[in-house]
Amino acid sequence: MRPSISVIACLVSSALAQTFQRLGGCPDLGCVFPPDQADFLAGQYFDIRLEVHSPVNGSEARTGEPDQDFKFTITKKDGSPVPATKYFKVDEPELESWNFTWYEDLFAQDADKPSLVNVTSKIYRRVALYEPGEYEATLTYYGNEKTVANWLVRDLPSKRRAKNVVMFIGDGMTTNMITAARLIAHRNINGKYMTKMALDKFPVLGHQMTHSMDSFITDSANSATALYTGHKTTVNALNVYVDSSSDPFDDPKFETISEIFRRRYPDGGVGIVSTAFLADATPAGLAAHTSDRGEYDHVISAYYEGLTKYEWTNWDGPDVLLGAGAEDFLETDETRDYYNLFSEKGYSLAWNKTALHDAPTDEKLLGVFQKSNLATWLDRNVYQANLLNQSNYPDGSDRDAEDLPGLKDMTLKAIDVLHDRHSEDGWFLMSEAASIDKQMHSLDYDRSLGELLELDDTVRATIEKLKDLGELDDTLIIVTADHGHGFDVTGSVDTEYLNAQEDDRSKRNAVGYYENSGLSQYTVAGPNSLRYSEGVHFPSRWDPRYTLHSGVVAFPDHRENYQVHSEGPRTPATEDKKNGYYAAYKDAVTGFVVNGTLPLDAGQGVHSLTDVPVFAQGPCQELFGGVYNSIDIFFNMAECLGLSEVKE
Amino acid sequence: MRPSISVIACLVSSALAQTFQRLGGCPDLGCVFPPDQADFLAGQYFDIRLEVHSPVNGSEARTGEPDQDFKFTITKKDGSPVPATKYFKVDEPELESWNFTWYEDLFAQDADKPSLVNVTSKIYRRVALYEPGEYEATLTYYGNEKTVANWLVRDLPSKRRAKNVVMFIGDGMTTNMITAARLIAHRNINGKYMTKMALDKFPVLGHQMTHSMDSFITDSANSATALYTGHKTTVNALNVYVDSSSDPFDDPKFETISEIFRRRYPDGGVGIVSTAFLADATPAGLAAHTSDRGEYDHVISAYYEGLTKYEWTNWDGPDVLLGAGAEDFLETDETRDYYNLFSEKGYSLAWNKTALHDAPTDEKLLGVFQKSNLATWLDRNVYQANLLNQSNYPDGSDRDAEDLPGLKDMTLKAIDVLHDRHSEDGWFLMSEAASIDKQMHSLDYDRSLGELLELDDTVRATIEKLKDLGELDDTLIIVTADHGHGFDVTGSVDTEYLNAQEDDRSKRNAVGYYENSGLSQYTVAGPNSLRYSEGVHFPSRWDPRYTLHSGVVAFPDHRENYQVHSEGPRTPATEDKKNGYYAAYKDAVTGFVVNGTLPLDAGQGVHSLTDVPVFAQGPCQELFGGVYNSIDIFFNMAECLGLSEVKE
Repeated sequence: MRPSISVIACLVSSALAQTFQRLGGCPDLGCVFPPDQADFLAGQYFDIRLEVHSPVNGSEARTGEPDQDFKFTITKKDGSPVPATKYFKVDEPELESWNFTWYEDLFAQDADKPSLVNVTSKIYRRVALYEPGEYEATLTYYGNEKTVANWLVRDLPSKRRAKNVVMFIGDGMTTNMITAARLIAHRNINGKYMTKMALDKFPVLGHQMTHSMDSFITDSANSATALYTGHKTTVNALNVYVDSSSDPFDDPKFETISEIFRRRYPDGGVGIVSTAFLADATPAGLAAHTSDRGEYDHVISAYYEGLTKYEWTNWDGPDVLLGAGAEDFLETDETRDYYNLFSEKGYSLAWNKTALHDAPTDEKLLGVFQKSNLATWLDRNVYQANLLNQSNYPDGSDRDAEDLPGLKDMTLKAIDVLHDRHSEDGWFLMSEAASIDKQMHSLDYDRSLGELLELDDTVRATIEKLKDLGELDDTLIIVTADHGHGFDVTGSVDTEYLNAQEDDRSKRNAVGYYENSGLSQYTVAGPNSLRYSEGVHFPSRWDPRYTLHSGVVAFPDHRENYQVHSEGPRTPATEDKKNGYYAAYKDAVTGFVVNGTLPLDAGQGVHSLTDVPVFAQGPCQELFGGVYNSIDIFFNMAECLGLSEVKE
Repeated sequence: MRPSISVIACLVSSALAQTFQRLGGCPDLGCVFPPDQADFLAGQYFDIRLEVHSPVNGSEARTGEPDQDFKFTITKKDGSPVPATKYFKVDEPELESWNFTWYEDLFAQDADKPSLVNVTSKIYRRVALYEPGEYEATLTYYGNEKTVANWLVRDLPSKRRAKNVVMFIGDGMTTNMITAARLIAHRNINGKYMTKMALDKFPVLGHQMTHSMDSFITDSANSATALYTGHKTTVNALNVYVDSSSDPFDDPKFETISEIFRRRYPDGGVGIVSTAFLADATPAGLAAHTSDRGEYDHVISAYYEGLTKYEWTNWDGPDVLLGAGAEDFLETDETRDYYNLFSEKGYSLAWNKTALHDAPTDEKLLGVFQKSNLATWLDRNVYQANLLNQSNYPDGSDRDAEDLPGLKDMTLKAIDVLHDRHSEDGWFLMSEAASIDKQMHSLDYDRSLGELLELDDTVRATIEKLKDLGELDDTLIIVTADHGHGFDVTGSVDTEYLNAQEDDRSKRNAVGYYENSGLSQYTVAGPNSLRYSEGVHFPSRWDPRYTLHSGVVAFPDHRENYQVHSEGPRTPATEDKKNGYYAAYKDAVTGFVVNGTLPLDAGQGVHSLTDVPVFAQGPCQELFGGVYNSIDIFFNMAECLGLSEVKE
């Protein structure tokens, strides 16, 4: 009955913590970062953090102080262990020490019984491995205790095959969302779509796994790090492994693709475009190094002048930096006037779409178009009244930011600048559709799908532009995501019927599933329909009688009426400080209550586990088919740009 | 502000019904099936149904009877219209007439105000188009009213490139589920998986769109039809377009890949394997032709003797037919003793795993292993007590079916038989992991993922077997799905903490998301862990303290405790005949209530919109990359098998 299965004794000894961990990536009392199974690009700069833990109480309690005399060696495969100082030709770092506390589980947290851990540590800064192959990095502590990290320097061809790379990130974008966006924006006759999304035309499709180093759900900081550096780390971290110290800036760093690209090709260009605030994780991942993505001033400072605290790669900022989040550029008691600093450094400055359009293409360009995140495509293009009375003009005045560019405007301008300034040596551009994620968090599926369609339209226009510039054949274009949300569509909703029912249960009978889902009515034009240029696809209307029955798999308490929120983005739940988040009545008055499945401190939806799609075309496109880890995107791009620096 | 958008008058005149439709695929009063945009394989048999509607009441009401003198012509592109009788060299069909009713919307249904439609109709049976290119099929009625169906006979190379095809269907399987299955069955160290799923090793990945002809959500009958025939149709239909008559067997048919394969290669073999009852839609799609998938006796009869009511392709049944659903093979007042009939026709018969193993490989083989659907992998391999007291032995006796094969046993045996009998001319095998879908419907995510892992193990073992037989290089292997469910994972659940909390809201605080999701504990062995053979991957345990926070996007009222249902498959909701489905308390006593988002008549989860993955390897694998329609799977397989039959 059970041919290949038998009951056996313990295979793996482990008492892994789950909700909380003593320190992610360090199941033993000796920690090595980069940890076991880390992959490196040949020549990539990185720091090495060692820690020895001595838990004072809790399930791992031991007596005595943490080891101060731990040893650390590097062993190339089939070689002998070499002390790290000798291997990297660096001085022995100073011993550091600190302590930290953590909770073993939710019961300990409820009882407020933290576990205390004393720590000794050293860090080796800015080293690199130039010889492909396997290494063992061995920490020896408490006498004969060993933590071995198996490292791999990947053996990649170093011939450059792509002049330029455009990397589009649809933040939080899944295959499910692409399917829904296609349904509402492309006309279908008897099961055949009459037009295709730009994404649907890509020759190569892959899936990438987005999980963290130490948790199976990721955030945008950690996943941006994986995509840009080839290193998986911890949630909220940008381009560092997270050590147990309290300082968010001392953690062990590793070099990003933008840093390596500029170091290897000093005349190459880098562009960063996002519809988020520019200090947000996905753009920040191309410059910052911190364990806390919330250190916004560090991020803007890193765009401006690179890292200053420790010696690192030379980085003098991107050629183009376009997005929102003006509050992080304005002078305050604690932060500098970055507008002024960027200007002094030779950047031209754009605060609105007109200025973006008029900006010279032969100068560096900073464009910041409003405070907070950029208004969504739906608000910028359909429900424009929502742009008023926001007092969000990027100069810090009380004016409204009304003359707003979209992702397409910013991306095409970025290409103009990069092409003008770096037509010889090429360039790397990251363009992020950030609010696919942000609107998915607030369960505002209409706005999220609008952002996805804007991304698709931007991809289409980018391909056209690169063709016009004669650069298409030399440019690798990748469209992917950093993680998912558990979104899908299961039918249609007769909103007239739903609104006419009086009790919560009857309203649910407005849902049509299977054959009763019928056909998309978002593409059926009516008297007030929107019309687009040739090849440009968005819904003709956002408020048909029959809407989508959409949802996510985990949510706070909220109300649903399955109708577009024409008066502005959704706020599904509001906080009662004592009892957590409850459904916001005003958010969907005609709807019904759905009680949450998330903890009471969650007022929004959360990220999900699913692999996300990768679309690729151009040089090296064949590297991006099939299923792989998110870090492989970095290695494939690095290979394609010839960034592997092999030395004996 | 809105560069490419302007408000315009009506683009498309349409008052499409949504929840209900007068007749899917027929927005006008004249209907042509195959409808507009239908694609054909050259030489594929099909029927043509014409209807003219005269609505008596409702929004489309007209006076007068439906036209009896409608005309129908075929026009090859750049040619002249030719009457269909002449084009196909067939007699003019007899005129039929009937009427039917439908509801215009939910309000009409509540008020019980149906719309009545009178119909005239003709049907041309068993015709084919042999010349690739575009055609116009034009119905002229009510004088000058015209319904034009644009048809395309695809221009495919007719050289056969694959000797064999194995088509795996993970019913309801999505990328999200594959990601979750990987998480619980494969060990991961610091973000790197130590082993790969068989699916993750496929060289080519694609996405296919699963929507119906007339609704954006599909079911397994309609989607099986698309995959096997290249024709999208209506939910619940098998290999026919659905006409408006009440007879489930008179609808216009089209030929399936198994029928064409056997017609073109009389010495080729066909195998059908499923973990569902064999009359279920996905296996049935290789033999049956009916608008109602619930016509189970028709399905079994079609396996046995093909179609008998109308002249059709010659089909003498599959070589191998393995699965469950014994009740449909037993003699009743209304049905024949199929066991006996199959035996008389030369099939050997297996009722348990031992008999399956011992069955001769040079004879045709029918294996039916229990009543209803096959017990799940989890019940067959881990919670075997659930196999007892089921009185489900396939001979109709009251014994329990305990000696059960799994998908792998059935698939490998099917290959043995097909290889033994058809090593010269090749074979086509469909193998379905049916309960990925069935267990997802009942929100039993553990059982569903177990089925998915069994599929993955079967794929792995199939590749090994084909290699051993020397057939791997000549065999196209495809793994895909027929539709999705809106499933995803958003974190972990501390089940000890959840069970210890007393109120519904506090229980939600057991959920850990983002960094608090931690690492999968399903792969961490404990004292009662399961162990598998080399390369075989399933969870080591199904009941760790920290489980997955899983869900689907739409659901009935139910309770959740996020713990494996060790006492048997879930029943999330039970029906109160007056008020619809409510949460079943006993289903998850320690959990909390989640109120539903589906109509009150839905006691289970439903299918979702998402594109589903396609994994391909072998001859023609390059046809399966990128994004395409489900029907393209049929055309790609047909191309690879050289089934396109072009004549002038």
